[in-house]
Amino acid sequence: MKTLAVLVFPGFQTLDLFGPLEMLGGIGDEIKITIVAETLEPVASVHGQGLLVDKTVADGSDYDLLFIPGGDTALVAGENKAITDWIVATAGRAELVMTVCTGSVLLAMTGVLDGRKATTNKQDFIQTVPLGPRVDWVRQARWVEDGKFFTSSGVSAGMDMALAALARLFGKQVADDMAHGTEYEWHEDAAWDPFAKRAGLV
Amino acid sequence: MKTLAVLVFPGFQTLDLFGPLEMLGGIGDEIKITIVAETLEPVASVHGQGLLVDKTVADGSDYDLLFIPGGDTALVAGENKAITDWIVATAGRAELVMTVCTGSVLLAMTGVLDGRKATTNKQDFIQTVPLGPRVDWVRQARWVEDGKFFTSSGVSAGMDMALAALARLFGKQVADDMAHGTEYEWHEDAAWDPFAKRAGLV
Repeated sequence: MKTLAVLVFPGFQTLDLFGPLEMLGGIGDEIKITIVAETLEPVASVHGQGLLVDKTVADGSDYDLLFIPGGDTALVAGENKAITDWIVATAGRAELVMTVCTGSVLLAMTGVLDGRKATTNKQDFIQTVPLGPRVDWVRQARWVEDGKFFTSSGVSAGMDMALAALARLFGKQVADDMAHGTEYEWHEDAAWDPFAKRAGLV
Repeated sequence: MKTLAVLVFPGFQTLDLFGPLEMLGGIGDEIKITIVAETLEPVASVHGQGLLVDKTVADGSDYDLLFIPGGDTALVAGENKAITDWIVATAGRAELVMTVCTGSVLLAMTGVLDGRKATTNKQDFIQTVPLGPRVDWVRQARWVEDGKFFTSSGVSAGMDMALAALARLFGKQVADDMAHGTEYEWHEDAAWDPFAKRAGLV
């Protein structure tokens, strides 16, 4: 059984979080999910729904897996030392670190991605990647794997990345079965990214 | 501004709910989301995350739009008279009624879909559609529109259906922009459904 810390902050993007949670949570007892925030107060998504919090960042950083969603407010979280210190400690110990959209930029703001290849959402790419100046940002990718780091493009891309992470952890068949069970058309090719072109990045 | 009632019950399927909420909520002030449950206690998804509840079924049924997610426990909710009475009243008034996966079966259990075309998830299709014996169940469809009823296939299909509902409400361009903004490859063809074949339904 692996422990998964899911970081949330006010205004997190709804599907950034819950798309990957459907995939990672669907594996059942193999992954134990803990919702982590700065305090134990419920945290509202950008669309206003309140999510209960299991643990705070002060409760420790000993998890096998780390997941960070995006949202415009991810950049605000990146200025919060209690959160960034926890990310650095948790990412340091974790065997796999997963981000979606501007969650990649939040991770980059901690310095943890320095020297790594990574990607983030395409519409805000030019405006946000300077916040991680020592990251090797990939302009066209659904998601990028660099060692233990799985960073993905905007919102929906998190589901494709999460399935790739499941494949890494439990094998390709498990990921295929999860996509089938959720009637999801998995974009298995990490290089598939029509949104990069639409955003004028390539 | 349109009011949207989102019914939740213990064990609802995570992506069934939050995929469509990303699309419908992304429209901003045009849609006001209210999470409705039997009581005001937080409701846990099948993956264990607790969601805050805004209103109970006793608080009224006057909403413009109704959305019902699925989950194995949707069939339990279909035996709960407080919930089914509320569904009948709310669906009767609403201008649009949307369901995902076994949420379609829950709606069918109330009788509201009698004589209508509808679809549900494909893996459990044969086992669950007898619970709505007077519904014209469609074996191969990503989603089905019949008048004000938008019913969709399993889990991920809810996102495609929600975009179609946005197109109905606000025009095709709005739905296209939402798919683009969330980097989602919208399956615009309601007949696209490879999962029906995989499940042996066609």
